[in-house]
Amino acid sequence: MNAMKQARWALSEADLDALEIGAGILGTGGGGNPYLGKLRARQALREGYRMEIVPLSALDDGARVVPLGGIGAPVVGVERIREGREGLRALRALEDRLGFKADAIACEEIGGANSIEPLIIGALAGLPVVDCDGMGRAFPEMQMTTYSIYGHRSTPSAMSDPHGNVVIFDHAVSELFHERMARAAMVSQGGSSVLALAPVLGAFLKRFAIPDSYLKAIRLGRRVMDARARKEDIAGVISVAEDGRRVFEGKIVDLRREITGGFVRGEITMQGFGPYEGETGSIHLQNEFLILRRQGRIEVIVPDLIVVLDADNGTAFSTDMLRYGQRVTVLALPAHPLLRTPEALEVIGPKGFGFGDLDYSAATG
Amino acid sequence: MNAMKQARWALSEADLDALEIGAGILGTGGGGNPYLGKLRARQALREGYRMEIVPLSALDDGARVVPLGGIGAPVVGVERIREGREGLRALRALEDRLGFKADAIACEEIGGANSIEPLIIGALAGLPVVDCDGMGRAFPEMQMTTYSIYGHRSTPSAMSDPHGNVVIFDHAVSELFHERMARAAMVSQGGSSVLALAPVLGAFLKRFAIPDSYLKAIRLGRRVMDARARKEDIAGVISVAEDGRRVFEGKIVDLRREITGGFVRGEITMQGFGPYEGETGSIHLQNEFLILRRQGRIEVIVPDLIVVLDADNGTAFSTDMLRYGQRVTVLALPAHPLLRTPEALEVIGPKGFGFGDLDYSAATG
Repeated sequence: MNAMKQARWALSEADLDALEIGAGILGTGGGGNPYLGKLRARQALREGYRMEIVPLSALDDGARVVPLGGIGAPVVGVERIREGREGLRALRALEDRLGFKADAIACEEIGGANSIEPLIIGALAGLPVVDCDGMGRAFPEMQMTTYSIYGHRSTPSAMSDPHGNVVIFDHAVSELFHERMARAAMVSQGGSSVLALAPVLGAFLKRFAIPDSYLKAIRLGRRVMDARARKEDIAGVISVAEDGRRVFEGKIVDLRREITGGFVRGEITMQGFGPYEGETGSIHLQNEFLILRRQGRIEVIVPDLIVVLDADNGTAFSTDMLRYGQRVTVLALPAHPLLRTPEALEVIGPKGFGFGDLDYSAATG
Repeated sequence: MNAMKQARWALSEADLDALEIGAGILGTGGGGNPYLGKLRARQALREGYRMEIVPLSALDDGARVVPLGGIGAPVVGVERIREGREGLRALRALEDRLGFKADAIACEEIGGANSIEPLIIGALAGLPVVDCDGMGRAFPEMQMTTYSIYGHRSTPSAMSDPHGNVVIFDHAVSELFHERMARAAMVSQGGSSVLALAPVLGAFLKRFAIPDSYLKAIRLGRRVMDARARKEDIAGVISVAEDGRRVFEGKIVDLRREITGGFVRGEITMQGFGPYEGETGSIHLQNEFLILRRQGRIEVIVPDLIVVLDADNGTAFSTDMLRYGQRVTVLALPAHPLLRTPEALEVIGPKGFGFGDLDYSAATG
């Protein structure tokens, strides 16, 4: 593993299987189901494309890196198959607009399907993907990356959809306006597009990206696969690997989800069992799981990660997989320190999700 | 007047006053209220800007002309004052994207506020406005121009809003998709933006634009002003000037309007008086007045123009000016022949507005 940190490395099919699991856990319910992306990535590998990861330490300070990912409501992402070239089209439109050639691609969001999208586009474009991301998890909006939080202005950006439409967000007066315009245009394009952001320099990523995202997500996925093979307690293995803790176990007794404005929003209610017998838990979600309440009291809150596992087999649930009657184990994992600074909490703390009256306290710290 | 047709001419403040009235009538209820635009245009004239109109006959075949206009729901356009530079910003972003300099500006829609917007932007940019438009009236969607109908692909286009955001629609797989994406982005920008379309050649406009739009709208406005001064019947004067006819007179007894997806949609019901005593009339609207029914039977249907006037003073009503209890006179004016061809009726006939079961017959012909 240590050798990997020194130089570029290429992803194998086994890495993709592990990444699917790791990214699913870090998706905290959102970010899109990585399964379909994995199938497309595997197909690309079998066609001879190469997926190369370049560690931050091996990246030139002057490298021009394009952060890039899918934008859409997770449920639509599952129901609608990508055409496959929209990401490359977005990248090329951006390069054309700015008159430059990208040196590498950066992941914005290691959680969920957006961990896989950059790999596929990098493979098609012949570009490596930097081993980092802007969230260390999944978040519902794109101004919620450490890139934007720490000063990157992400326009001009280019968006494309499976139909072949291309939109360039040439200038946004704020990162939030960029998000709003892109989300509105994405909905008009059918709900599942790819957006390539204005390039960042390698030196910027070294300071402000969450490091080693692919390495860690793949390692996490491998541990879960090992634990499954050995019939170990998967929740326990994840907690140890990610410095987390178990915060609830229960049966889903109520479930409310709706898609509005390109987002999935809702709430699940659980009736506790095991050590939580007689207690009630609830999780508020907006694409991702945002707030866990136990007996009405907030136990875990964004940006810390709330992971919902199938209590019986340890599979990480995305919000669209939740069903009435499921038995779940809920874990809390600490957010990366770059997500816990005062400037980060302004954007991805409770306030960034409309809970201005709630305070972030490092519940899992 | 005939001399005007030979060469460029400059608009006066009196022309703007007449244009406001003429464009209001041709707006058929929509296109945005031209009053605020007129105030801004007058201010520009007083600051020394020049508004020049170039007749189609004086336009070079190779001239690169940018069709341009505001995009938004009319009611929002009234409530929200333009920042003033968004149109110039959109034009410059388009020129920058395509690496060309525009030779002139074309009006897309002579009805309503979009008759004035090109004049202001032309003045700021030092460019003449071609004496033509793409509708000969107002329509709710931008693929509904003769430019699009007769083959112009209007992307790349550039859109800007009063905040300063700039979006480029680099490629749309259809004119309808362009409309959808632009409308969604416009709503996310606050509901009132300006869109500059890919340039057309002078030769194209000579074949496919509605000619002499400014000349005719100003002349129509002057006739109404004269009729008002002489206390003549304004409805009669308009009918004669535009080869139209009176189709209903009544009191508004029911009124339903709602803004959805950037459009105003609704229906008004009228109880007849005068020659229509005892009859019921209704008008279906989507930004503009689309269908007039008399005793439940369709009397006038899009693309022919339905004009609703204040029965007492002859003021043309836009949909947002309608109130319960108003006494109105309704006129039907024939659409330009370019709007009545089979290919035009596919887009701006009843079918283009979701009334696939209704037939267009030249009710006013």
